Amino acid sequence: MIKHALSVTREADFAAWYQAVITEADMAEESGVRGCMVIRPWGYGIWERMQRLLDDKIKATGHENCYFPLFIPLSYFEKEAEHVDGFAKEMAVVTHHRLVPDGKGGLIPDPEAKLEEPLVVRPTSETVIGTAFARWVQSWRDLPVLINQWANVVRWEMRTRMFLRTTEFLWQEGHTAHATADEAREHTMRMLEVYRSFAEDCVALPVVAGEKPENERFPGAVATYSIEAMMQDGKALQAGTSHFLGTNFAHAQDIKFQNASGELDYANTTSWGVSTRMVGGLIMVHGDDDGLRVPPRVAPWQIVIVPMLREVPEDAAIVEYCKALHAELVKQSACGEPVRALLDLRPAKAATKRWGWVKKGAPIVIEVGGRDVAGGNVSVLRRDRLYREDGKLDSQAVAKDDFIAAAATTLEEIQATLFADAKARLDGNIVAAADFSAVEAHFAEGRKNPGWVEVQWSRPTGAALDAVVERIKPLKLTMRNAPIGQAPANGPCVFTGAPAVERVLIGRAY
Amino acid sequence: MIKHALSVTREADFAAWYQAVITEADMAEESGVRGCMVIRPWGYGIWERMQRLLDDKIKATGHENCYFPLFIPLSYFEKEAEHVDGFAKEMAVVTHHRLVPDGKGGLIPDPEAKLEEPLVVRPTSETVIGTAFARWVQSWRDLPVLINQWANVVRWEMRTRMFLRTTEFLWQEGHTAHATADEAREHTMRMLEVYRSFAEDCVALPVVAGEKPENERFPGAVATYSIEAMMQDGKALQAGTSHFLGTNFAHAQDIKFQNASGELDYANTTSWGVSTRMVGGLIMVHGDDDGLRVPPRVAPWQIVIVPMLREVPEDAAIVEYCKALHAELVKQSACGEPVRALLDLRPAKAATKRWGWVKKGAPIVIEVGGRDVAGGNVSVLRRDRLYREDGKLDSQAVAKDDFIAAAATTLEEIQATLFADAKARLDGNIVAAADFSAVEAHFAEGRKNPGWVEVQWSRPTGAALDAVVERIKPLKLTMRNAPIGQAPANGPCVFTGAPAVERVLIGRAY
Repeated sequence: MIKHALSVTREADFAAWYQAVITEADMAEESGVRGCMVIRPWGYGIWERMQRLLDDKIKATGHENCYFPLFIPLSYFEKEAEHVDGFAKEMAVVTHHRLVPDGKGGLIPDPEAKLEEPLVVRPTSETVIGTAFARWVQSWRDLPVLINQWANVVRWEMRTRMFLRTTEFLWQEGHTAHATADEAREHTMRMLEVYRSFAEDCVALPVVAGEKPENERFPGAVATYSIEAMMQDGKALQAGTSHFLGTNFAHAQDIKFQNASGELDYANTTSWGVSTRMVGGLIMVHGDDDGLRVPPRVAPWQIVIVPMLREVPEDAAIVEYCKALHAELVKQSACGEPVRALLDLRPAKAATKRWGWVKKGAPIVIEVGGRDVAGGNVSVLRRDRLYREDGKLDSQAVAKDDFIAAAATTLEEIQATLFADAKARLDGNIVAAADFSAVEAHFAEGRKNPGWVEVQWSRPTGAALDAVVERIKPLKLTMRNAPIGQAPANGPCVFTGAPAVERVLIGRAY
Repeated sequence: MIKHALSVTREADFAAWYQAVITEADMAEESGVRGCMVIRPWGYGIWERMQRLLDDKIKATGHENCYFPLFIPLSYFEKEAEHVDGFAKEMAVVTHHRLVPDGKGGLIPDPEAKLEEPLVVRPTSETVIGTAFARWVQSWRDLPVLINQWANVVRWEMRTRMFLRTTEFLWQEGHTAHATADEAREHTMRMLEVYRSFAEDCVALPVVAGEKPENERFPGAVATYSIEAMMQDGKALQAGTSHFLGTNFAHAQDIKFQNASGELDYANTTSWGVSTRMVGGLIMVHGDDDGLRVPPRVAPWQIVIVPMLREVPEDAAIVEYCKALHAELVKQSACGEPVRALLDLRPAKAATKRWGWVKKGAPIVIEVGGRDVAGGNVSVLRRDRLYREDGKLDSQAVAKDDFIAAAATTLEEIQATLFADAKARLDGNIVAAADFSAVEAHFAEGRKNPGWVEVQWSRPTGAALDAVVERIKPLKLTMRNAPIGQAPANGPCVFTGAPAVERVLIGRAY
């Protein structure tokens, strides 16, 4: 019987386990500000790694970074009816620009400093960026416009959960304008593929890329695509979205240009975003009962060296040995980047430090004691296989030089293992259901991890779609997406009995 | 007579020239949101370069990045009296969390969704970060805490100017907590030195590092230090500040710890920040009448290759030649990083592109025409010496291989030249004044670039200091700082006649 590092297991209480990982790995904490969290160095370090890797991909596809205002005048929102309907219920509104004493030792917003037009704290930036596009785009020669921004956004969520749904969150939002609908659609798909490869190749999160059904579209979009990841409790997490906006925002913001024939056309626009939510997905896909496991490509530290010091003169030789090891490791290159190794010299017990790094999920923890130095060894703990078959910690003494020579390969292997394990879980937990009673039966069983069900459907719209949504709601189900590259439909729609036009995934979701 | 690229010169109208550089170099523009700008790709790219280089230095001095909430409850501010006095007049206040239709086709803040406690959009984060420190710090073993965040902040400025003073701006704010005042003071100075070396070595901005006089201190600080740069009109720009906060915020936020003797002590804290203001400083120090000149270390593109195409079959050979040149250049390393070279294949005239890059201030612009290809040459334009003595553009044909071999050295030379020119201007425009009439005489002359005056003073405080401030105000002067490492004072105070204790710089400022 293994005694794990966390006091709660995934099996016993998945939600409590998720929170325990965040706390024990020092990733984030409540801030005292409603719905907002403090992202601590280990959580933020993972986000910084994600930013760096995704930013490289966004730039490699021709985008440049910009920065647009945090505040958006109310009037900008009033121009796109669907868009404002989708966001008005959850927007933070700035109404005053000064505070004055309330006469009782406190402060109040100064009634003399009330804004003529309230400002909304951006929930997303289509409206203010569209206004800039209208200034920038005059002729077909000005297109495409391909930009991105890294920013904080605010959506006033009533029920918040760290990383997954917070009032303020961090994200990147890409915005582009194109001369034709075809080109904009193609770009929407290109960015979806960027997200898929980022999630899978960098974060080791296997995902299904597909189109969201009409009722799940971004407010104002013509089509919304997503990548959906499966958590260890079988729920889906929408981990990134890419929207084809058609000319909806171009009409609202007046993004017009003279085409090659000299006529005025409206631009077609796209937008796409990935947020700190991805950190929550990483936890729920890769975490285990000992804490987080961070895929090496997004680990702030990939290899942590813990010297086993006992406050004796022999300590000096151990520290020297560790410094030399560290110097060799950072010369190595793994996954195309220099290895990130940390020598942990903080004044604490080695065992405390070891378990701290296990809970944080550093891919490799090296312990070095006097015996290791004498033998020219290091004791290696791999976070992807922590225990031996007998339940004991699988710490292996390895010749130091052998470890250094294999370090990069080992990191790449851990990255591949984490992905492969999650991929097998995803693939193994999607089952086809031929009719609605099979869907009901599947989710009625009360299994811990019901996964997702794939059904064929006729893709109803309007009221017929609403009926479908209502029918699956009692099972707490939503339609996730219609996977790209799927086999042709070949049966009846499980909802309407009409001939199906595509396959769609159904599941519970965060 | 040189015909320069901008329609207004520094000499004719410095303020209009500054705005022209920002517009012509595509750095930023009005956003339509009061006091907020859109930072366009070239301006943001420079900021990204600054971020990368400064972030490396901040991490190298032991700090980790975190993220704290955008919103700060009003009550947090009420705890530090000086701090709130300093900021209450310019804070954006969120009072509602939802919008509803106003019945006239528009939207209004929902009266049903009024916040019980208004939230302030952070003007700076001492209060909310101090609250986190209070949770994190229990024992001397938890100290020091060394963190930093990259964030947007809002100060409701009445008169705004792009990059220099905007309602919303981007910055980094470092916050640390220490066991002793000495250690915190030492850290305050360490970060001031990080800023000095960042400004001088990376941005090529010569600065004077020193202590601000009491009346210019950050609200709540015990001591404030700054780096001051001199613009080409002789005005000072405070380009970074480092504050020793003593135990003021520790008392307000209750940051206590058990010291090594087992007693409870208040922590000593510091904070320090550099913002997008630095981009404004870069413009006003390095710009000329042809636009911006970007020091290579912070240039998004250091070398831009412009093929001179004429829509003829021979173009293909020119493009091939340029691609090979580009491939060779990016293999080079300058200032310790790979060379950032761009091949500009946009569909526009070569001369338009050349002048576009001159105005943006790319350090080196390479033009390649058919004759260059035939001769194995490139035509090189260095932005730091654009014209020959006869006033013609100094475009020099150089053997391609020679250019490649010297590219890194040339970039490093441009970096050094820009710094040396600015340093000579700074040093040449600080004059000593032995008495107050000399100060008056210096600034009364109506010179375009009066620079700064160094005086000796007795460092009066309270009402005596107020009198000094009032005395220099009619001349539009402020005290900038008392330079570090200055020669000992040896005369009377120019204000009070008492023996002077230090030298302080006086000048006009942004």
